[in-house]
This record gives sequence, C-alpha cells and structure tokens, in this order.
Amino acid sequence: MSSVYDVIVIGGGISGLTAAKLLVESGLNVVVLEARDRVGGRTHTIRNKEVQYVDVGGAYVGPTQNRILRVAKELGIQTYKVNVQQRAIHHVRGRTYAFHGAFPPSWNPLVILDYNHLWRTIDEWGKEIPVDAPWKAPHADEWDKMTMKEFIDKVCWTKTAKRFGQLFVNVNVTSETQHVSVLWFLWYTKLCGGTQRMFSVENGGQERKFVGGAGQVSEKLSDLLQDRVKLQRPVVRLDQTGENVTVETLNHEVYDAKYVISAIPPTLTTKIHFNPELPPIRNQLIQRLPMGSVIKTMMYYKEPFWRKLDYCGAMFIDDDNTPVEIALDDTKPDGSCPAIMGFILSRRASALTNLTKEERKKRICEYYAKAMGTEKALHPIHYEEKNWCEEQYSGGCYTAYFPPGVMTQYGSVIRQPVGKLYFAGTETATQWSGYMEGAVQAGERAAREIMCKMGLIPENEIWLPEPESVDVPALPFHRSFLERNLPSARGFVRFIGCSTFLASAAVLGLFAYKKGFITRV
Amino acid sequence: MSSVYDVIVIGGGISGLTAAKLLVESGLNVVVLEARDRVGGRTHTIRNKEVQYVDVGGAYVGPTQNRILRVAKELGIQTYKVNVQQRAIHHVRGRTYAFHGAFPPSWNPLVILDYNHLWRTIDEWGKEIPVDAPWKAPHADEWDKMTMKEFIDKVCWTKTAKRFGQLFVNVNVTSETQHVSVLWFLWYTKLCGGTQRMFSVENGGQERKFVGGAGQVSEKLSDLLQDRVKLQRPVVRLDQTGENVTVETLNHEVYDAKYVISAIPPTLTTKIHFNPELPPIRNQLIQRLPMGSVIKTMMYYKEPFWRKLDYCGAMFIDDDNTPVEIALDDTKPDGSCPAIMGFILSRRASALTNLTKEERKKRICEYYAKAMGTEKALHPIHYEEKNWCEEQYSGGCYTAYFPPGVMTQYGSVIRQPVGKLYFAGTETATQWSGYMEGAVQAGERAAREIMCKMGLIPENEIWLPEPESVDVPALPFHRSFLERNLPSARGFVRFIGCSTFLASAAVLGLFAYKKGFITRV
Repeated sequence: MSSVYDVIVIGGGISGLTAAKLLVESGLNVVVLEARDRVGGRTHTIRNKEVQYVDVGGAYVGPTQNRILRVAKELGIQTYKVNVQQRAIHHVRGRTYAFHGAFPPSWNPLVILDYNHLWRTIDEWGKEIPVDAPWKAPHADEWDKMTMKEFIDKVCWTKTAKRFGQLFVNVNVTSETQHVSVLWFLWYTKLCGGTQRMFSVENGGQERKFVGGAGQVSEKLSDLLQDRVKLQRPVVRLDQTGENVTVETLNHEVYDAKYVISAIPPTLTTKIHFNPELPPIRNQLIQRLPMGSVIKTMMYYKEPFWRKLDYCGAMFIDDDNTPVEIALDDTKPDGSCPAIMGFILSRRASALTNLTKEERKKRICEYYAKAMGTEKALHPIHYEEKNWCEEQYSGGCYTAYFPPGVMTQYGSVIRQPVGKLYFAGTETATQWSGYMEGAVQAGERAAREIMCKMGLIPENEIWLPEPESVDVPALPFHRSFLERNLPSARGFVRFIGCSTFLASAAVLGLFAYKKGFITRV
Repeated sequence: MSSVYDVIVIGGGISGLTAAKLLVESGLNVVVLEARDRVGGRTHTIRNKEVQYVDVGGAYVGPTQNRILRVAKELGIQTYKVNVQQRAIHHVRGRTYAFHGAFPPSWNPLVILDYNHLWRTIDEWGKEIPVDAPWKAPHADEWDKMTMKEFIDKVCWTKTAKRFGQLFVNVNVTSETQHVSVLWFLWYTKLCGGTQRMFSVENGGQERKFVGGAGQVSEKLSDLLQDRVKLQRPVVRLDQTGENVTVETLNHEVYDAKYVISAIPPTLTTKIHFNPELPPIRNQLIQRLPMGSVIKTMMYYKEPFWRKLDYCGAMFIDDDNTPVEIALDDTKPDGSCPAIMGFILSRRASALTNLTKEERKKRICEYYAKAMGTEKALHPIHYEEKNWCEEQYSGGCYTAYFPPGVMTQYGSVIRQPVGKLYFAGTETATQWSGYMEGAVQAGERAAREIMCKMGLIPENEIWLPEPESVDVPALPFHRSFLERNLPSARGFVRFIGCSTFLASAAVLGLFAYKKGFITRV
C-alpha cells in the first residue's frame, strides 16, 4: 500500500475506537487494526433468544464516569439502574445476613471498628498518591514493597474484616491480595473516587448498565468509523526505523502511518515484534503487568424469586468452596429475563477452569440456594458464562495489576511515548483505570497527544476535564465524625487492655498499701 | 513447503540446541527457528582485540552441573577456575573487610547468628519442596503468599543480615526481595543444591568458566546441526488446528511438523499468536513470569593490580549508590586481559539504564576504587557491558522469576504439553533452573518426551539422572554441629532478655524479702 495513514490505532476496544473517532472528527486519516473478528475488546454483548442480550464482559457504569456516559449518550445508548431495592446478602460461615447498602454491617463492635479502619486507611493513604504519577507518592517505595495481604493483615484485627478485605480485593481487581502491590491498589481505588464510590451499586461504579448492552458502544463507534476498522488483523510487527511507522498484521498486510496508538493492555504489546527493540524499562514493564483472572457468569430463572424474599440479588458469599464471591441482579430493566450475575474470581477462576460448564453452573446454583435459603435457585432455565482467562487478545479481565515492586521500578514509563508510538488503553488512565471510563479517558488523551504533536491543538488541551453527566449525577460520600474518629479495632483493644492494666495496677496498689505491704521508706 | 518435519524447535539457545542434537542423533528430521541473527540466547561471547573473547551473558559453571559439563566436553570446550586465591572483599558502610570463602564473616556474634539462621532456614525449609512440583509442598500456600522481603524481615534480626539477605536475592535472581515469592526462591535455591552450592565460587555455581567463552557451546552445537538452524526467524504464529503443527516466522516462512518444542522463556511465548488459543491457565501463566533485570559489565585494566593487594577481585559492595553489587575476577586463565566482571542488578539496572555507557563505567570504577582502596581502579583501559533489559528476544536475564501467588495458582502447567507443543528452556528444569545446566536438562527432557510419544523410548527414559563429571567433581557441603544448632539472633536475644528478666526478678524478690517488704501472710 502506498497510502500513508495519519494514525494507526492498534486495538478496537472502547479506548482505541474513541481515539479513532476523535482523530477522524479532526479530519485525520485513521485505520483501526483489531485482532478479533469483533470490536469491543473486554466488553462483549452476546445476543440470543434466551437472554435477549447480555454483557459477558465489562458492563457497569456509574456517577463520575462522565466520559463513557457522554460517549454512550451521543451514540443513543441509555442506562438503567441495577436493582438494589431489596436487601443484599452477606453469606458467611454458612449463615446469611441481609442488609441494605453497599457494605455488610456487623453486630460485633470490633468488626465494625475494623471495617471502618480498613476503608478509612485505604482512602486516607490514597490522598497522598498523585493520580498521574503514583511512583512519586511520599511513601511510594514503602507501599510498593508490600502486598495487599500484608496490608490487610496489618490493618485488620478481626478474622471477619480480614476475610472481607480479601474479598474486596478479589472483587475489585480480580486478583489475590498476595498478587498486588499496596501502592497500586491504593492508587487504583483512589482513581475510582475511593472505596465507597468503587464498591457501591447506588451512587457507585455498579449503579447502572446499558440498555441493550455495553458492547453497543464499540459496535456503534465502529459503525461510525465504517471501513476504517479492520477486523482479524492481529499486529505482529511494528517498525520505526523508517520515516513512517510500519505495522504488519498476521495476514501479511502492511500499514504505514505517521503515528501509532497502542490501545491494548500493556501485556498484549508483547505480541508485537518491535524494530528497533523497545527501550529497556518498557521491555521490562510489559512483562510485569498481568491481567486479572475472572469468569463472568449469568444464571437465568423463570422468575426473580429473590425479590419476593425481599432480596435484591446482590450477594457477598464468603466461603472457601463457593465459585461466586459476588453477585448482582441482572434482570432486564423491563423485568424480563430474570437473572443473577456472579463473578468467579482469581483463585476460584483458576481452580474451576477445568470443570465443564455444567459443573460450574451446578456449583454456583448450590451456593445461590444456600445464600438465599431457597431451593428455587437450584433450577435455572439458562446459563451463560465467559472465561476471560482463555482470551489471547484480552489476556484476562477486568484489567492489569501491578505486582509488588513494579510500579516504583518500572511504572513511570506506562504512558511515555516510544518514538511515534503512543499509549492508550484503560491501564494508562488517571481516572477509573480498569473501567470503560478509563478506556475513554486514555483513548481521547492519546489522540490529543498526537493532535498536539501535529500542531492541531495546544499542549494544555491534551488533558481535558469532563463536565458532569446531567443524567447520572454524583452524590458526595460523607465520612461521618464517628467514622473519621473511631479507633481501629487493634487500637481499641490495646487501649482497653492498657486501661484495664492501669486500673488493675491502681486497685492492687491501693489494696497492697492498705494491707501494709507497701511502706513509705 | 510440502515437507513435514518431525520436530520444530523454537529458540536456538542451549536448551533448544541440545534438544535438537538429541533428536537428530535419534534420526529425526528437525529444524531450529531462532529469532536473532546468532545462536546462544542468554549466552553470548563477544570477540575483539581488547578482550580476546568475553561472555556478556551466561558464563559460570561448577560442580553438580554435570549435563552442561558433559555437553561442553563433548564439544571440546574446556573449563578454567575463576580466581579466588586471594581475599574477597565485603565493602559495607564505606569500609572494606577482606575475607576468604564464599560468605562474608562478621565480628558481631548477633550477625553471625543471623547469617547462620538465614542460610539454614532457606535450606531447611527447601527440604520439603518437591523439585518437580513446588506447588505441592506442605507449606506451599503459606510460602507463596509471602515475598522474600517479608521472609528476610522475619528471619533476620540485624540490619547487616537483612541487607546481605537482600543482596543475596539480588545477585542470585536479578530481582528484588519484594518481587519474588518465598516458595519460588526456596525452590530455586534447592535446585542449585542449597545456598552454599548456589552462592560459592569454589565448589559452587561460579567455580569455573569456559576457555573461549560459553557462547561456543551454542555455536558448536549449531555447527553440528548445520543448516537445520535457521537464524532471523522469530516465530509469530503456531497453529494446531490441522493434522500437523504449523509454525510461521516473521518473514512469512511456514514450517510444518509433527511436534514442536518451545525452548524460549515462558514470557517470550506471548510473542506467538496461537490457534487455537492456549489453555486458560497457561495463558495466565505466561503473563506472570517476568525475566530478571541485569546489566553485565567487564572492566579491563593494564594489570590485575588487585592480586598484588592480596585481593582476588571478588567483591560484595553494599552501598545505596554503587552500580555493581557483586564482582568477580574475569582475567583470562593465562593471565591476559586483566578484568573485573560486575553485575548491575535489578533496581540498579533500572536506575542506571538511561545513563551513557561512559557514565556507568565511571561510576563502577569509583566504587571499585573505594572497595579496593586504590586509585588504580579508576583507570581502566577498556569496558564492555551488556544490558539484558533491552533484549526483546531474551526479555531479561538471568531467568524468569515467580511473583507471590503465581506458583501455587498457575505454576503447575509450566511443563505441561499443549497438544503437540512441548516445553523446554531452563525455566522448566528441575535442577539448576535458570542456569545453563537447567537449559540442557530441560532441552534433553523435552526431546525425550517427544521421542517417547513417538514410541522411540519408554516413558521411564524421559527423565535421566546424569553421572558426575570426572573433571569437575563436587565436594559435599557440611553444616557443622554449631551451624545446625545455634539459635537465631532474635531467639538468642529473647533468651537473654528472658533470662535477664528472671534473674532480675529473683534478685529483686530476694532483696524485697530481706528488707521485709514481703511478709509471709
């Protein structure tokens, strides 16, 4: 081909497609090379008669995710609220506790103190981390040397809080507490607006889904971009030795461009043979950012029986043998296709990956029945699942994680262009990294980096703030006086222990004095 | 091409070439596809007039590495002993301590206890780890959740031992203590025969080098294999959907074979586009095994001035700003080309990667001058270095490491064939993994797996023990009665503290009794 594109975008997920859209709107000549036979990347909407449509990949959106909400609205995609009207369930040690709200409560004052201290510590420590340069945080070295397992063991005192802390990590980043760096996890949480915004359904990251499925975002973007999007074009070679960048696909097509945007997860850039080789730190970094492991499951029932039991379908299941640790109602907004969505996370995804689909379905139903206390959960009418661990062109889901020591030693090049190669993808975002929101932020930012380089926009227009969505406004989260000032469980116990000791000593001393054992010498 | 090979070997390092040799000797039709324009992989001998020859990659061999010694001998390559006749140096807190032996001594009894306890713990815990299935160790889960940083912080009590423990990890696995799993590091050390065998020059892993360079092993193997070895053939595609396996290279050549051996590091298999996709656990594993980071340096001097100072050139330099943490004499066996080899390891390799070669050279010389206390070190006549972090087709050096949680959750598939694809490479070895010895063991084992599958040998001949080298016999290491029974520093201090407390209490009690403060009631 003799024509030279302005920009080649590698990856037809939300990040690559929003980058391409912006570049095309600016009058540039763009081509998007997508490895799979579909667009969407880690979002994927499947359609069939049993489910109408279902998101087997990324699905949830919520307040403060203003970019993805803007893009979706522009494409005519509406949102609906995930059902949390009835009670959620915390199933632990074989018993079910129903509650309202995002976080399970406890009758045990020590557990309450422990929970409060854990969320507060994650959020408070996060305050000092620069969103665009976490490796520069004052405690970066110390926190990056620690795993979240160590952190939770140190911060929490009760077994209940430790176990819930572990579930919190599993659910939010599809990895184990021992896998991930504290610095990275605190940064990640901060980028979502803190523990409450990240973990909540109402007023949080899981408040809504897209009517018709999240896959539509990419499908409609792809429609706009028309034949600029080329499917089944895995990139195998990227050459920057000439005047233009040359990119070759697995089917031997060669594309030349002035600039390239990599809009795929960092680890997937290892699939490209680079000439010249990548700079040393980047070559090291891309080996060190594995994707999380998750199987997303949807269990369909004849009716949403849980609602009649005053359960909303949201469940935290804390049990060594449960496949699903977290579940949410996945019934359609019009009440059709009653379903429960459940995530099989990290170690459970690994352990259950070699079972048959039927076996996984059976085991999930057993735990839904236990958690909701009804045999009705044992009789689904349909089951869908997607094991993201097997996906060569995603690597895993939801997103990349940073093992201990990687952020401070290699992380600072994450967004650093390599010659004419720029980096998008949700992993490079500075708000809601790992989410669809981060994908849009990163895609548009990378597009603007190139537009700036081409002299089309000034440098101060590369990073743009996003106005708040009028349809999905964010309510602030308050940390009450008590929440801010309660002691930790460990601190409380020490205080009590210390007080008891002092009091006992005083009593004993008085007693001894009265008995004449102590004489003033 | 219509011809179908029996076996395609991906990777022309020592592992791939020894596999190919064995297969060819068994009468099979083999082709080796090597990505670079040279064979040798992580071994590479450079020749020029200043240095004659120099190993900028893997170089050291020693007793119990019987397979690589056998292969080298068969190829007519001789070994020579690395010079450790004079005193080694431990440079710490700005002072130099000279000593004989592999491990630096200490005047401080607590440090001595601490060192002893550290080595003993690593070796003792290692005993329960199965070499071929570390994930099955009784404490596998517990140890895999811990980083070596946590381990060292727990086992060591003195700052000196903690710092040396860190250096020990840096030196042996070119990574940081916070990067690596305890389970993996204990397994890795055990595979070398323990801390002493791994770390020693005399009677250990660094006892010898090859006259003429380690690169000759691959060069001579390649000569034997003749035009079966194809250079500049990075593999981009591996297809197992047909009767034979189809492999395509970056230059569009297509090779068909009955079997394939992957003899490259696990992380480099991400560069291949697989059809069908890899099984989920393997797809996860290959994202989680980064290569270590190291720059190997050689400083050449007019004469080996250190020997006149009764230094052998071996140095442990413990200083926050030194580029090189460990150095060894690299003078040729005939006394020509006096030189000191130094490793810039992990965080230091990352920190110094953007300096110029001249700047690195200067900084290294400054620390050699400090450590050896002579200005002569400031005036080298030549400098060679190799930054393995930049190598696309090695990923790094010396070898892959397992971050916490990876071994137990994903590690069990490391050697598991995927259809007709078998796995060699030193990372899959069960003795001296990470070394040339492991490369040979793994290469020959993978070749025999295929030979067994083809019915050429029985299953019990896949894993063969190796007779001991007659030229390089191993002496046993003894742990003396004292070394086996001394308390840890922490234990000792607790014991002393407890004894002191009890003694004080007794004295006080007696005093109180005599003074009449205590009356028998």
